[in-house]
Amino acid sequence: MSLGPGAVEYLAPKAQEALKAARVVVGYQTYITLITSLLTHQEVVATGMQGEVKRCQAAIDRARAGQWVALVSGGDAGIYGMAGLVLELCAVQGLKVGQVDSNDELDFSLEVIPGIPALTAGAALLGAPLMHDFAAISLSDLLTPWEIIQRRVEAAAQGDFVIVLYNPKSKKRDWQLKAVVELVLRYREPLTPVGLVRRARRAGEEIIVTTLEHLPKQPVDMQTIIIVGNSQSFQYGPYLVTPRGYLAKYQVGDQ
Amino acid sequence: MSLGPGAVEYLAPKAQEALKAARVVVGYQTYITLITSLLTHQEVVATGMQGEVKRCQAAIDRARAGQWVALVSGGDAGIYGMAGLVLELCAVQGLKVGQVDSNDELDFSLEVIPGIPALTAGAALLGAPLMHDFAAISLSDLLTPWEIIQRRVEAAAQGDFVIVLYNPKSKKRDWQLKAVVELVLRYREPLTPVGLVRRARRAGEEIIVTTLEHLPKQPVDMQTIIIVGNSQSFQYGPYLVTPRGYLAKYQVGDQ
Repeated sequence: MSLGPGAVEYLAPKAQEALKAARVVVGYQTYITLITSLLTHQEVVATGMQGEVKRCQAAIDRARAGQWVALVSGGDAGIYGMAGLVLELCAVQGLKVGQVDSNDELDFSLEVIPGIPALTAGAALLGAPLMHDFAAISLSDLLTPWEIIQRRVEAAAQGDFVIVLYNPKSKKRDWQLKAVVELVLRYREPLTPVGLVRRARRAGEEIIVTTLEHLPKQPVDMQTIIIVGNSQSFQYGPYLVTPRGYLAKYQVGDQ
Repeated sequence: MSLGPGAVEYLAPKAQEALKAARVVVGYQTYITLITSLLTHQEVVATGMQGEVKRCQAAIDRARAGQWVALVSGGDAGIYGMAGLVLELCAVQGLKVGQVDSNDELDFSLEVIPGIPALTAGAALLGAPLMHDFAAISLSDLLTPWEIIQRRVEAAAQGDFVIVLYNPKSKKRDWQLKAVVELVLRYREPLTPVGLVRRARRAGEEIIVTTLEHLPKQPVDMQTIIIVGNSQSFQYGPYLVTPRGYLAKYQVGDQ
């Protein structure tokens, strides 16, 4: 299930109910901390970074044992989150899973509860940068070869997509963002507006609007999401806006 | 503000509060209908399809007159929603807008409240198709020249992105989806799994998992979101899964 950006006021009732109903809550320690106010009776199984496989396997084992498990992901569990890994593990292990109301005999029932992803939580703080076609790309080459990431950045730049960069930098990965900016600059103007949001809707929230050429100098870490405008995006006061095309099509006040 | 997929159980407390606090609720009739149970004292300004400019202008005029206005969008207001058009209109009219806590003198204050977008509401029902890099493309050529849409579809296919198609078909637009499938088939296998979700988390919800070659024969309308898998996506029982790469990287049970 998805926790959204973190603050409980962005957590849908459906997700709050799932937490309440759970006997076990499994997740990355940072995300568990965000929801401690909602935990009462639940057993907590928290793991550190890169403990993803262990975490998902623990959730599967508990569910097979008949316990109600809430496996939590920050943002949306379906975007670079835990939903896929659970299903991958089930597939590898030949388990039969499905919806609660399934007619089939299942090893356990499973529901993916969507949430507000980092990309829209961040976009809302920047104004409206995702109003036209966009591509989301993770710069982490821990699980994906750098050649594939590079190829996708180039395709997104060529296609004039708004580009959302997840995991732009970590302590061990410090050169990728600069390489990406150089690649995008082959197709897009140096003054293309870029928005950065760190820790959206959490303590320590930071919002920066800058330009593509100045992006490499900005403070960036694993908790930052970066949105690079397309050829039509513009800065307006504190906002980053990508036009949808309405005003070009209709005269203002025309209808 | 964002309504998410529609059912109140997917509407974050922050959005529910904004509706409660509003004196005026402005929106497309279909979305207003979804939240009638939450409306008590509010004046409702509902417009039909393609009344976007009029709707946003009404919201701006009311806000400038000092009223609390909730301008509602289905899904996330920042993804093909109303957030951008409001900011575009403000920019054209030279209005100064900003956050409620801004130190500047403003014509009115504005907050974009994010929500669960159609792409993650749909993805959750399909399992986990968005676990790796993806591109969102609207097939509506009402506001965007077809050449640009075509160029983006081709770039997304070349880059092996999971492809999310918004607005795949309407009564007047019936040939675009077939053209897109033909384009993607130049880069992707005919058996590439594809998920379709219609009216996610609303009455009349429909979920279909099929293949790229059979996509043109599926029932599709403006309320359908289509997710085309990348070269690694696979069907597993009722699910569409795009692997993130964990199991290739780590041996299962390795940590």
